[in-house]
Amino acid sequence: MRLVRYGESGSEKPGLIDDENILRDLSEEIDDLAGEALSRATLDKLRAINPKALAKADPSHRIGPCVGRVGNFIAVGLNYADHAKESGMEIPSEPILFNKAPSSIVGPHDDVIVPKGSDRLDWEVEIAIVIGEEALYVSEDQALDHVAGFCLCNDVSERTFQAQRGGQWMKGKSAPTFGPLGPWLVTPDELGDPQAVDLWLDVNGERMQTGSTATMIFGVKTLVSYISQFMRLMPGDVITTGTPPGVGMGMKPERYLKPGDIITLGGKGLGEQRQTVKAYEA
Amino acid sequence: MRLVRYGESGSEKPGLIDDENILRDLSEEIDDLAGEALSRATLDKLRAINPKALAKADPSHRIGPCVGRVGNFIAVGLNYADHAKESGMEIPSEPILFNKAPSSIVGPHDDVIVPKGSDRLDWEVEIAIVIGEEALYVSEDQALDHVAGFCLCNDVSERTFQAQRGGQWMKGKSAPTFGPLGPWLVTPDELGDPQAVDLWLDVNGERMQTGSTATMIFGVKTLVSYISQFMRLMPGDVITTGTPPGVGMGMKPERYLKPGDIITLGGKGLGEQRQTVKAYEA
Repeated sequence: MRLVRYGESGSEKPGLIDDENILRDLSEEIDDLAGEALSRATLDKLRAINPKALAKADPSHRIGPCVGRVGNFIAVGLNYADHAKESGMEIPSEPILFNKAPSSIVGPHDDVIVPKGSDRLDWEVEIAIVIGEEALYVSEDQALDHVAGFCLCNDVSERTFQAQRGGQWMKGKSAPTFGPLGPWLVTPDELGDPQAVDLWLDVNGERMQTGSTATMIFGVKTLVSYISQFMRLMPGDVITTGTPPGVGMGMKPERYLKPGDIITLGGKGLGEQRQTVKAYEA
Repeated sequence: MRLVRYGESGSEKPGLIDDENILRDLSEEIDDLAGEALSRATLDKLRAINPKALAKADPSHRIGPCVGRVGNFIAVGLNYADHAKESGMEIPSEPILFNKAPSSIVGPHDDVIVPKGSDRLDWEVEIAIVIGEEALYVSEDQALDHVAGFCLCNDVSERTFQAQRGGQWMKGKSAPTFGPLGPWLVTPDELGDPQAVDLWLDVNGERMQTGSTATMIFGVKTLVSYISQFMRLMPGDVITTGTPPGVGMGMKPERYLKPGDIITLGGKGLGEQRQTVKAYEA
């Protein structure tokens, strides 16, 4: 299944994209794509519905972030060997974890706003994991049982805030609009092997990032199991899993986003995002 | 006002402690001490109620964490000069921020569970800020307008997970039960000057930490303003502000918690917490 949230920001409705790419309404079935609605039992219930029996929704609706009420937005750093190299960092021996503020989450096609004081605004195409069931001390074999699905994420980053404002990366990862999620929450059965997803990102139509989750240092199962050794993962938590090479910080000379730039990104089976970069206005 | 959440974990009701220390029920007034209920308008409405007009609640109820649906649990590191020194770290030039998982939050008297693989479990008495109104790019002068109140927090920490498992402190700060909050959400008018709060923590009745928020490096107004430069703070977000000297990691020899230990801690005007340390059981 490809599940979506559509409508205005803050009042999105749940929906489904059928196999003819028609947006259908799930409001009669679930309140929101959030919390307990992400459980295996609810997803199985939705899977049993004939999509053609669901009302069509107006396809001109804004698409919102594909998961609501995210309680913990976790990110993995330097999880592709080539990206670690371009960042001038060593390949980590254990996953590097940091947080993005849940208030950074926006829809896949919403504007990306340059935060006040920003001078090095960067992009990162990633595949994110959406947790569907609580996970504490789970093994790698059990890990996928706790996953509701996957989505595309642009882990928008401010490099000066991240690296030069006093330790811990969250400062450069949390501004409003720094977490476009979606368009779709793609269930594991629909996606297939999460370690065989091609990812790409363009700025103004120029290819910047090309990669595949096949070259992740720590794969999806490992990450869910590993993180569950340190905290209880909850339904609706999102783990974005690191970016392949091609970020602006890794270029010579470095290259950053400015107002007016268009970012487009995609992942095989995950759909595409398109963001316009805009200046902050109070 | 001293506001509380009482009842079983996951189904707490909102309440108030009156000036005779009687627990009174606020369920008729608000659904929960969470989200929009933390706004200035709602707190003003609650303040206008005569507490004696509220039904008494059974005082034997468990006290839960004093804020519900925490969206972002932010912590400040090394925010007391003496604690930075005992940790062998330099005094930071800007606040050090990290995250605790919201799923670590428990009530003030709930057990603290030793996580699997833990060998250096430590305590940290702190005053935490509860955000009541959205805050982005707020000045220090405006900062307190966005604060619903304050509460006591034990920033329970696993030092090996924090320092030796690959960068970024969240790994040692996020296990279930690592975030006791409460007993009370104390409104700013009730607390008085947040930079004049004495804090203390005992283990098995022996005094370990003694301090005052007067010696914070970055005070409450500075922290709220500073963090709001990097992210949009939301109602129900919690910022725990760092710990004074006296943690187990700073002792010679180092001293850590073990099953059976009793932690008691308090802050002037904030009330007291009491936790029993227990081994993890699957």
